[in-house]
Order: sequence, then C-alpha cells, then structure tokens
Amino acid sequence: MTTHDSVTPPALPDVSGLVVGVLGGTGDQGRGLALRLAKAGQQVVIGSRTAERAEAAAAEIGLGVRGADNADCARQSDIVIVAVPWDGHAATLSALREELAGKIVVDCVNPLGFDKQGAYALKPEEGSAAQQAAALLPDSRVTAAFHHLSAVLLQDESIERIDTDVLVLGEDREATELVQALAARIPGMRGIFAGRLRNAHQVESLVANLISVNRRYKAHAGIRITDV
Amino acid sequence: MTTHDSVTPPALPDVSGLVVGVLGGTGDQGRGLALRLAKAGQQVVIGSRTAERAEAAAAEIGLGVRGADNADCARQSDIVIVAVPWDGHAATLSALREELAGKIVVDCVNPLGFDKQGAYALKPEEGSAAQQAAALLPDSRVTAAFHHLSAVLLQDESIERIDTDVLVLGEDREATELVQALAARIPGMRGIFAGRLRNAHQVESLVANLISVNRRYKAHAGIRITDV
Repeated sequence: MTTHDSVTPPALPDVSGLVVGVLGGTGDQGRGLALRLAKAGQQVVIGSRTAERAEAAAAEIGLGVRGADNADCARQSDIVIVAVPWDGHAATLSALREELAGKIVVDCVNPLGFDKQGAYALKPEEGSAAQQAAALLPDSRVTAAFHHLSAVLLQDESIERIDTDVLVLGEDREATELVQALAARIPGMRGIFAGRLRNAHQVESLVANLISVNRRYKAHAGIRITDV
Repeated sequence: MTTHDSVTPPALPDVSGLVVGVLGGTGDQGRGLALRLAKAGQQVVIGSRTAERAEAAAAEIGLGVRGADNADCARQSDIVIVAVPWDGHAATLSALREELAGKIVVDCVNPLGFDKQGAYALKPEEGSAAQQAAALLPDSRVTAAFHHLSAVLLQDESIERIDTDVLVLGEDREATELVQALAARIPGMRGIFAGRLRNAHQVESLVANLISVNRRYKAHAGIRITDV
C-alpha cells in the first residue's frame, strides 16, 4: 500500500514501553518535553553535556526521569529527541553518531536568528536542521517533530492539556508513526504526518511567525491542522 | 503604542465597502476566493489576461462579480489579491506597477515545485513571492495572505463555513489589519497577523506540507493558530 491509498491511516503503534531520551534536556524546550512525556507515563532520560546537570534537571522533574550525559542518554534510549540549541546542533550530533546508530532521532530544533524586528529563519546549508541531522547521522532513523510547542506551556504544571498538533516529518513511515504516537501520548496533542525531511525547513522556520503571533496577541500560539 | 503593548488587538476595520480585485481570478484559487468574498457581500472584480476570460469567469460566479483585464482590475480595486501561478508572478506584477501604486496588494502565491515525491518549496531570489512582489511594486502596500486555503473547499458551494485561519504578513499595520478584516468576512475564517514579509517564505512553503497531509489523510487540510 502506498501513502496514496491509505484513506484511514492505520492505528498508531503502542510506544508506551519505549525509552525516550532528550538531548538538551536541561533547556526549556527539552525540560518541558521531558516533563510532559514522563507525566504521560513514558520512561524518560534527560541528556546534557555533563551527567551532573542532567541528573539535577531529572531530579527536579521527578516522575522517574533519569539524567545522563548525552552519550549515555543516547545509548539508553529507543527514541532520542534533539532539543539542543541550533548553535550546538552539528557538533552534538557528530559526536553521537555511534550512540545514535539504529535509533529513532526526533529533531525539534528551529534555526532562528533574532534582531530588533524579531525572529527570522536561518538557512542551514543542508536545507534544515533535520536534514543536517540526517546528513550527520546516516545510520539513524531521523525524523523532525515538536517544533511548535510553547516551552512556557510545556513547563507549566497547572496546565493539564495542550491543544495543538505536532507535525511529524521523515522518510521512514514506521519511524514517523512511532513519533506520531509519542506526540499523541501528551493530552491535547496529535501527531500529524506532514511530509519528508526536504520540507522540514518551513516547519522549523514557522516558529518565527509564531513568535510574531505571540507578540501581537500576547499568546502562546500553537498550530492545529484542520480537516484531519 | 507599539505592537508589544497591544494585549487586546483593536477591533478590525470595516472593509465592507472596499472593492477587491483578484488577479489570476480565473484559476482555481482565484475563482474560489472571488466566490467566497462575493458571497460575503464584497464587491469583487476578477482580473485575467483578457477581459473576455475574466468576464466569463465572473458571469459563472454571478453575485455581482465583474470581470476585466488585469490592468483594469487593478485600477478598479482597493485591495488586489495576486492569485496568479508562480511562473507568471514577476511578469504580471512588473507590468502592473503603475496600476497597483497606492493599492493594498495581497500576495497568496506559493512557489512550489513538484516531482514524484510530491511538492517541495522553491526558493525565490528575493526570499519569497511576497518579497518579490514588494521589490517589484515599491509604490504598493504589499501584504501576504490566503496561502493555505483549499481551492476545492473554496469552490464547493455546498460548504457554508471553512474553518481555518488566514495568516497575514506585512510591514504596514493598517494594511495587514484591512487584510485580516477581509479574511474574517468569510464564515469560519480569522485573519491572524503572523509577521513581516521576511518571514513569508515558510508560510508560502508550508503548502508543500499541507499537500503531504492531504495525501496521507485524504483531507483538505488547513491551519488554525491555537491560543489566539
């Protein structure tokens, strides 16, 4: 069956037993994702440059979250979310090529620049952060997702539900469906397949527009896909 | 007041008396927009290369829609939607520089390429179709909007409401608010300010992702901004 034939997409796989690593898990976005996934019952390992920082962030979250240095985090995990700053993206991933071999990698990095007029899209040489990850990690199953989540909402424990869709991109259908299923573990979220990695740049860059929305409307804007 | 201070954006202006031109109004997107705006009570002029083709498309819609060649369409209109194919974008706008002077121009063109793997973003030299329009029309008030509407839904008269948001971009706040108000005339739609023209490329290109969504889910996908 090709994608063209699938009128009703098959039920998403059960990912409840998979261990999720979060590289850059001590940053706002990574910590927020770790918290939400742990609350949903997922086993989570936070990765950071030093095990100590990762363990401290994990202890703060509780919920059984563990901390480890990035290499250990990658080794221990089935699905590895990359939530590092764009600045450190290439160096971090290059160093983890072996540890990430065979793993599902979920890039959620948004390469943005900022000036007085706000945020704007940077143009990675490879086309996007996700394509850079795919180029640096030829033995991993690279996907892209979780770009548009507000770190503020993710970290606010008084908020139970975050009503937004997670656009999931990738070449490997089994991998993208696992990531869609992972997104759907968080109350209010759906994982929506949204194309191949060559179309990741605009998904990453759209965060610049959401920042403009947030400024104008004093919001924590997210995205919903209609008619799906 | 700067944009940073506007917790509640002011009420949008009344655009019910403005004449809306649609360049490329004989194409699917243009015809669909002309129909929806006319149904909403807006005066609409369809533009095409020849007045005859434009008049025929206008007659098919009815609702008082008029047809004219592109230059006449531009002259008669207060707000001019550019819904021409990307191929003809630069040539069409260059030829209308005088007629479009002082007008609000709404670019809704999505520069996309297609191959066996589906759609992908083209990279206009100016950054985006909207920035190309701004470069070619220095005397116009160029905005970008209406990128993500399904031409199928727009043209299906059995559908009363199209639940989706219209992202509106531009430098000129008065112009973007008029375009937001125009979008809000169509039942189910909101016009949401989403940044400056330098952030138009990803909004235009996101259509490639929506095409992937449509294929996978057999949908006519649109976008909603959450928390606004």
